[in-house]
Amino acid sequence: MQRSLFMDIVEGRLSSYKVYEDDLFLAFLDIFPRSKGHTLVIPKKQYLWVYDVPQAGKYWEVVTKISKAMQKTLKPTWINYSTSGLEVNHAHIHILPRYTPIDKPAPIFPKEVLKFSGEQYQEIALQITYGL
Amino acid sequence: MQRSLFMDIVEGRLSSYKVYEDDLFLAFLDIFPRSKGHTLVIPKKQYLWVYDVPQAGKYWEVVTKISKAMQKTLKPTWINYSTSGLEVNHAHIHILPRYTPIDKPAPIFPKEVLKFSGEQYQEIALQITYGL
Repeated sequence: MQRSLFMDIVEGRLSSYKVYEDDLFLAFLDIFPRSKGHTLVIPKKQYLWVYDVPQAGKYWEVVTKISKAMQKTLKPTWINYSTSGLEVNHAHIHILPRYTPIDKPAPIFPKEVLKFSGEQYQEIALQITYGL
Repeated sequence: MQRSLFMDIVEGRLSSYKVYEDDLFLAFLDIFPRSKGHTLVIPKKQYLWVYDVPQAGKYWEVVTKISKAMQKTLKPTWINYSTSGLEVNHAHIHILPRYTPIDKPAPIFPKEVLKFSGEQYQEIALQITYGL
């Protein structure tokens, strides 16, 4: 399997707006955000698919922990997850805090990419980490 | 919180094409399938959101187990997950086995609803359970 771009983030050769890190997993803001706080959670070791990661339970516990932090500080109306894996050959889970009413249909993965400044990204990442 | 339709499935008042069951979780075929084998995994107790389920790790381990079973018997090219929760007020994870090439973009949640006969649904559910 070809080495993924995410390995450069894991190894610190490429910077990211980090949200969470432990021995096995790393979470950072997506740079093509579909919502304020849109986060990617990846295993530090490169696996192709999310279901290839041996520590499935731990992986999703990290996702849940970050979701609860987002609830506290970003105060979204709901949060959704998606995985596809077609864009990058390294397992990644999208966490999207959402701010639309829960009684209105909404796309699972909004098409529009939002724009934030570096300072705004840093502020959002900090907000999430405050809730952890 | 209003009682969900899924509680009728959990309590056996509404039938379903069951794929997996344990003390805490139940998985069955979605009756609006977006792919062959499209499965919903729910907690037997009603929680609103996936991240409200206290046993997050166990929940996703079940999802992973079912995904591996699908890999063996349905032989999809990839599998993706999504959660939104806007349609039913009971946490549910969508597992979609996919059959399109992995080097081609594809929607996370295809719009088209597939049609299967009762016999076909039963056959698909059986195929997944054979892989468990």
